[in-house]
Amino acid sequence: MSTNPPLRLVVVGGVAAGASAAARARRLCETAAIALFERGPDVSFANCGLPYFIGGEIKQRDALAVQTPLTLKTLLALDVRTSTEVTAIDRAGKHVQVRNLSSGTVESLPYDKLILAPGAVPLRPALPGIDDARIFTLRSLVDMDRIKAAATNARRVTVVGAGFIGLEMAEQLQRLGKTVTLVELTDQVLPPLDRPMTLLLEDELRRHRIDLVLGDSVAAFEPGDALTCRLASGRAIAADLVILSIGVRPDTALARAAGLDLGPRGHIRVNGFMQTSDPDIYAAGDAIETEDFITSDPVSVPLGGPANRQGRLAADHIFRPTEAKPYPGSLGTAIVRAFDVAAGLTGWTEKRLRAAGRPYLTVTVNDSHHAGYFPGAKPILLKILWAPDTGRILGAQVTGLAGVDKRLDVLATAITGGLTIDDLAQLELSYAPPFGAAKDIVNLAGFTACNTRDGLVTPVDALPDDLSVQVLDVRPPPLVAAHPIPRAGTINIPLGQLRARLGELDRARPVITVCALGKTAYFAARILAQNGFRVSALTGGIRAHFDPRSPAKLPTP
Amino acid sequence: MSTNPPLRLVVVGGVAAGASAAARARRLCETAAIALFERGPDVSFANCGLPYFIGGEIKQRDALAVQTPLTLKTLLALDVRTSTEVTAIDRAGKHVQVRNLSSGTVESLPYDKLILAPGAVPLRPALPGIDDARIFTLRSLVDMDRIKAAATNARRVTVVGAGFIGLEMAEQLQRLGKTVTLVELTDQVLPPLDRPMTLLLEDELRRHRIDLVLGDSVAAFEPGDALTCRLASGRAIAADLVILSIGVRPDTALARAAGLDLGPRGHIRVNGFMQTSDPDIYAAGDAIETEDFITSDPVSVPLGGPANRQGRLAADHIFRPTEAKPYPGSLGTAIVRAFDVAAGLTGWTEKRLRAAGRPYLTVTVNDSHHAGYFPGAKPILLKILWAPDTGRILGAQVTGLAGVDKRLDVLATAITGGLTIDDLAQLELSYAPPFGAAKDIVNLAGFTACNTRDGLVTPVDALPDDLSVQVLDVRPPPLVAAHPIPRAGTINIPLGQLRARLGELDRARPVITVCALGKTAYFAARILAQNGFRVSALTGGIRAHFDPRSPAKLPTP
Repeated sequence: MSTNPPLRLVVVGGVAAGASAAARARRLCETAAIALFERGPDVSFANCGLPYFIGGEIKQRDALAVQTPLTLKTLLALDVRTSTEVTAIDRAGKHVQVRNLSSGTVESLPYDKLILAPGAVPLRPALPGIDDARIFTLRSLVDMDRIKAAATNARRVTVVGAGFIGLEMAEQLQRLGKTVTLVELTDQVLPPLDRPMTLLLEDELRRHRIDLVLGDSVAAFEPGDALTCRLASGRAIAADLVILSIGVRPDTALARAAGLDLGPRGHIRVNGFMQTSDPDIYAAGDAIETEDFITSDPVSVPLGGPANRQGRLAADHIFRPTEAKPYPGSLGTAIVRAFDVAAGLTGWTEKRLRAAGRPYLTVTVNDSHHAGYFPGAKPILLKILWAPDTGRILGAQVTGLAGVDKRLDVLATAITGGLTIDDLAQLELSYAPPFGAAKDIVNLAGFTACNTRDGLVTPVDALPDDLSVQVLDVRPPPLVAAHPIPRAGTINIPLGQLRARLGELDRARPVITVCALGKTAYFAARILAQNGFRVSALTGGIRAHFDPRSPAKLPTP
Repeated sequence: MSTNPPLRLVVVGGVAAGASAAARARRLCETAAIALFERGPDVSFANCGLPYFIGGEIKQRDALAVQTPLTLKTLLALDVRTSTEVTAIDRAGKHVQVRNLSSGTVESLPYDKLILAPGAVPLRPALPGIDDARIFTLRSLVDMDRIKAAATNARRVTVVGAGFIGLEMAEQLQRLGKTVTLVELTDQVLPPLDRPMTLLLEDELRRHRIDLVLGDSVAAFEPGDALTCRLASGRAIAADLVILSIGVRPDTALARAAGLDLGPRGHIRVNGFMQTSDPDIYAAGDAIETEDFITSDPVSVPLGGPANRQGRLAADHIFRPTEAKPYPGSLGTAIVRAFDVAAGLTGWTEKRLRAAGRPYLTVTVNDSHHAGYFPGAKPILLKILWAPDTGRILGAQVTGLAGVDKRLDVLATAITGGLTIDDLAQLELSYAPPFGAAKDIVNLAGFTACNTRDGLVTPVDALPDDLSVQVLDVRPPPLVAAHPIPRAGTINIPLGQLRARLGELDRARPVITVCALGKTAYFAARILAQNGFRVSALTGGIRAHFDPRSPAKLPTP
């Protein structure tokens, strides 16, 4: 695959997408002249690991260096230049202007193909006091070192933004013994998820004494001995250190100045082969707009996995244009851990589907992460969404104490394969007591979804205020006493007595059956439906809606 | 969905498939008369858990009872009869003959629909001495109790058969402090897997002082103070307790006597809705022959997951014939844990594909189960097989110290969705440092498979005896010194020096590149191929072939 004269490839940005692109390029072509420019001092570092070095869970700073400039030179024969900024692109002349940030020297270098992987910049809103030296964002190893140093003497930390990075930072700073306040604009942590799927996470954060301030935002930072975070509500929070983690914007000034097509929020537009509006210029990673896997709408997914694969694909298309396969679009699969709880999503959420006006159906199911009879079984909650016409899976969310990543990955794969709720019901997953269950929670979700589609059960996801609706709690009375449902007039008939006690219910009024996890409520709803009641069942039980650690059984005395 | 007069459903067998069928039947029809007959004293127990109660990992015997006759009566209004055998089926008259094994009374009961879920019986070959009271098989809670009692005073245990149950029993008996010998007829443990995928498992068993006797079998049991297991090789092993776990045969005497169609090995033949050759008689679980998911060939998969779902489907088809969806066929997804190692498979193996004369390609890749820079990363090995013409995944095998079940489930889902090697390369799996990697091992397998398909690398899975082939070890010299390749004449040039030292290799002779995990060997092969060498790379590195714990790096001093 040698070219004559050697192809000149310039890669701008040396972390996930850029480093992957350069490495793949070298594997495909030994003779190409490949230059990699990185504005910062580091290349190819594990940016997803930064919070964990700050918190001390990752102990060796070296561990974060996937490659160094030296290893890239030695192993890949790249011309690596760190602390070097590409300041302009001359598209007509096919040159880039490059400035060495240490020496200040500027030079112009030719390219045949150019790959832009500039990444994204943390948002830093123009609030009063925003320039206080105690306010940090986290993007690079340099940022990480600064935060780690600042954390040493900080006692009170405020993390602004409860998304993925915000949760990781809150966890890691709590781990260091700090008093942590987490401020989030929306009414839930992890805003990409549907709210009920975040209850366990919120509970876990509060258990670890993190002060959650939801539905509020910072209006100003007021300097002083302590930095005061003045919230929109008026509340004041004293902090020795503030982490801003409210999102990112694409770092696309260079692309914009070069006249490349950008999307409405400034992302670089690319085709399926990562080509920008200039076919000799590619772009990959957090700065681009790609397609949504399901709808093909433009979407921006600033995550490490897609960035790496997009960079690789750009190189593929440069050196093997007829063999490269187009990028299939992004699902937005993501996961976060906060202490013992994990939560994540893949594909579309109810929130997004509703906002987009797309039809969907959904169920939420509870189970154990492996066979309940085997020691160590932990609770897990799975919500799936599907298209009413085809049954195809549109998205999934999972939270729990174990096995969350596995179910997310299975559902991401299911969406990729166009699987339906019927397929989930029959999915043949691995089962031995330490690992799975004869009917995995993914199967249960499929069963429940098919039962809904087939009219065997009508799920509801809230209890109505209307007191004419009979709410029937079918748990054993001691469990009801210990974990009551917060609604007046609830009737309690345990499942085993239901057939004999149907007379206690009013056939003229609708019934909603409720239990801890949702399964027994379904069983009860089947009995009632076949006895002429208008009945629906609370999907996911009270665990999914009110009490994320509600037990399915009372502990054996 | 009520019938008038009530439909009479008889279910034969009260464990996985039978109990699932009866429970689903009741949810679908409150008015049906459902009778469940079980020959043994227990219903609906967790048969996959039996080894773990013997070994004490499951402490409460009650935990194994998913349901009891009482709960089935109370919650599902079933007519449950344990210790009751169905001895004959009168298909013309639609009656079953039933014998109460306690009282000896016999009665004849009518049915409209019949579901057979008789399960499978452990094989017990007619060897000399086979009737010794110290020889056990494991199928029921009764067997479990007997083995647990016998184990109390046993010091030396021989487990015959190193399949899934054999490995679990060996592990659990070692856990009890027994001296365990594991005898296996084939030359590997876990015979369904391809041999290289079992090396780590063998190593783990030996580390736990289990005496592995491979390629040998028991010829006779010789009674005495100790029971002597006389092997085909002549070797004698003294045992106080013997567990036979050499496979199962379908328990289909009843079906055979009733004249139902059986397969060549005695399994009950069913259609996609679990109907036998008599459309009013269904069968499900370990006793049936179903279709292979990939090839649609007849296959028998005696596993808990399929059994449960088949039982459920039989009930579905009885009560909702127009809405029931046919069984999609079985993948044979299975997993086992032995101490800290897990291993499993889904779909077809190389062994099966070769025996069937079906074309395939395969790669094996090593990685960590999550990001290597995050603490606790454990080795994992993944082998995939795909169809050369379409790229569709035909099967996968996984072994490692963590994350094995996740990758098996992703691959099982990928096969179900008809995914190709290109899809695996782009699969968007969940990534945060504690859970995954920016390029998960599933992506790596996809990359490597595509590279193979595209001619970027030629994988080999053995080193030839032919000394004219140059074997090039590209690991750092200290690693080579610590973990040498067992082949004379191996050349060592570390990857970073390869471009400069090409002159040390003979361009006229083929080269095979080798490293610890397979990745560096691929990098080296790319350099050599582009410099005019005929080169191939050892897939999966020495870890996959000689040394299952071979390190990728020397420990930092």
